[in-house]
Amino acid sequence: MSFVATPQSMHFPEALPLQSGASIRDYHLAYETYGQLNADRSNAILVCHALNASHHVAGHYEGQAKSEGWWDNMIGPGKPVDTNHFFVIGVNNLGSCFGSTGPMHLNPDTGAVYGADFPVVTVEDWVNAQALLLDRLGITQLAAVLGGSLGGMQALSWTLQYPDRMRHAVVVASAPCLSAENIAFNEVARRAIVTDPDFHGGHFYREGVVPKRGLRIARMIGHITYLSDDVMNQKFGRQLREGLDLKYSTQDVEFQIESYLRYQGDKFSDYFDANTYLLITRALDYFDPAKPFGGDLTQALAGAKARFMLVSFSTDWRFSPARSREIVKALLDNRRTVSYAEIDAPHGHDAFLLDDARYMGVMRSYFENMARELSAGQPRTQEAA
Amino acid sequence: MSFVATPQSMHFPEALPLQSGASIRDYHLAYETYGQLNADRSNAILVCHALNASHHVAGHYEGQAKSEGWWDNMIGPGKPVDTNHFFVIGVNNLGSCFGSTGPMHLNPDTGAVYGADFPVVTVEDWVNAQALLLDRLGITQLAAVLGGSLGGMQALSWTLQYPDRMRHAVVVASAPCLSAENIAFNEVARRAIVTDPDFHGGHFYREGVVPKRGLRIARMIGHITYLSDDVMNQKFGRQLREGLDLKYSTQDVEFQIESYLRYQGDKFSDYFDANTYLLITRALDYFDPAKPFGGDLTQALAGAKARFMLVSFSTDWRFSPARSREIVKALLDNRRTVSYAEIDAPHGHDAFLLDDARYMGVMRSYFENMARELSAGQPRTQEAA
Repeated sequence: MSFVATPQSMHFPEALPLQSGASIRDYHLAYETYGQLNADRSNAILVCHALNASHHVAGHYEGQAKSEGWWDNMIGPGKPVDTNHFFVIGVNNLGSCFGSTGPMHLNPDTGAVYGADFPVVTVEDWVNAQALLLDRLGITQLAAVLGGSLGGMQALSWTLQYPDRMRHAVVVASAPCLSAENIAFNEVARRAIVTDPDFHGGHFYREGVVPKRGLRIARMIGHITYLSDDVMNQKFGRQLREGLDLKYSTQDVEFQIESYLRYQGDKFSDYFDANTYLLITRALDYFDPAKPFGGDLTQALAGAKARFMLVSFSTDWRFSPARSREIVKALLDNRRTVSYAEIDAPHGHDAFLLDDARYMGVMRSYFENMARELSAGQPRTQEAA
Repeated sequence: MSFVATPQSMHFPEALPLQSGASIRDYHLAYETYGQLNADRSNAILVCHALNASHHVAGHYEGQAKSEGWWDNMIGPGKPVDTNHFFVIGVNNLGSCFGSTGPMHLNPDTGAVYGADFPVVTVEDWVNAQALLLDRLGITQLAAVLGGSLGGMQALSWTLQYPDRMRHAVVVASAPCLSAENIAFNEVARRAIVTDPDFHGGHFYREGVVPKRGLRIARMIGHITYLSDDVMNQKFGRQLREGLDLKYSTQDVEFQIESYLRYQGDKFSDYFDANTYLLITRALDYFDPAKPFGGDLTQALAGAKARFMLVSFSTDWRFSPARSREIVKALLDNRRTVSYAEIDAPHGHDAFLLDDARYMGVMRSYFENMARELSAGQPRTQEAA
């Protein structure tokens, strides 16, 4: 069993200006830290999370055996991101439903639950909030920002918003922006939620209901896009749920894959907030650092100073290797130092959360080098190299 | 403008036994024919349709300029399937909502609308019904059965159910069975429909409502899987609907792709029947001619006598070229005559309905050869060759 993690919370009374022009004040950020901050405060790693995750990145909660963090295989003592060397920080993003201020909390301006009135937040907003938390923790410069999927977008955005506050960016199974198809899947999931009669325009809390139908559909769609066709065929194929005989029914479960998806949808609808789902998928849609540069990612990344490590997975069709290569190319165009590993793994997008010897090996090497830099007392940004 | 098509209907009083063990009686099949049946009745081509299509394959309806059939670019005088040579028959399948008996019609056993009680129908059942229609039309042997997607599955099934009643099978953008991912997408669409409060367990007709929310979601999901990522990026990319400025809204349309999908969903929910959607996606799920042979497609196709033409499209990720190649391999294992064209086209699964010079050229050549056989008076099955 892994170590014991303790969730913490920080209150921010001051208004945080958001990209939309709105702002949010009197908010809380939930976070956890693992390992020890060293004397010169140079060994901190920020881990950014994706859609269905939180500040609980590693370890387990006291007395809860099955409460491992979502990246517990990656982070901890002796693990690829070794907390014997690094001080690791997980932060729950604004708008989430796992501890930080979100749509289910009170709007201090009205005294009512935010619901659909929670301001739209972007990757850039999250990064700004994370930076404020680091200020309060007394961390001026991070050894690295690390994230997978949407978390990787945050790591990338960090290199542009705070180029001097980090030395490495580790961007796993991510993309420089969503494709039209990515946005399309998000939109279908949102429509399923918004058109659920129990959504009540986002103010379902006061009606005492939850738009579970919509959440189930959203999760089922999401789940399909996280897996590869190959791994689905390996795990489920055309196996029937009960024996070999068909029931000839349009509504009952016939195939194992149906049973699996319904179970995933049900489970998700029991704990995930519908407004959070809308907010986080919108943050994904909006992220596009090349937009102010007419779509030129090379220009967009010109200001990045971090050294980069990118990882992609061969069967990931949500954020395919080609999307990571776009980032690699733009960094090389800018003569940045960049490592890139394309891992041949069968698990689709989900691979970034799973154990794979080559993936874990690559990550371990990268962070071991980072630890050696630290112990040699030579942490540096790329420009100072 | 194309020629004028006239829909017809045939009544079948006798019970048709179905694969499920149930049966259906007193049903109608809607159909259309184009061209002239020749003296020895050897020039008939049956065209099978996919999910959102019907017996109205080609031509337009009298006085309705924009009523072209769904494969009007392929079939007609001087077109790749040339009705100057062939007698083409389009049949609407049982359970459809476009003319043949379906869930919105009266169940003769109860006098009430079928609704959810319409029997589950399979590809094999459809083929049996089509064969009965051909009996009534006096056609003993078809020159070819032709279909795309689910229509291709019917063409394939024809070669196994009625090997002596056809000489050619033309199977476009199809598969020998659905993959787990294919079933998964169908299941999400079905869940969206079934969990719509307006579905009423499939008996929504008597409630005077339509489960439009579910139908919209089903269509949006379907639409994403019909297009390729590339063509979506070309057509829509990350273009905003209005100007360059974001609105920062989780529920309003921001991107063109959202607007497009919502429009497609709305349009579909205005005319498509929810029970039909369930029935047709289930027929897709169930089709698996290799199942009785332990999954061995080569054994399954051993009884086919037709000569085969298969076509797939490079960017079709719903029924990828690899799925067509499975069929080709199984046919070659059986020493069947098979032509195969893998068309490099950007449009994904939808490509089978679109004009593409290479695709149209390949189809034209194949059917021209078939016409030459006819005029040489040498139509033959493969075994007779």
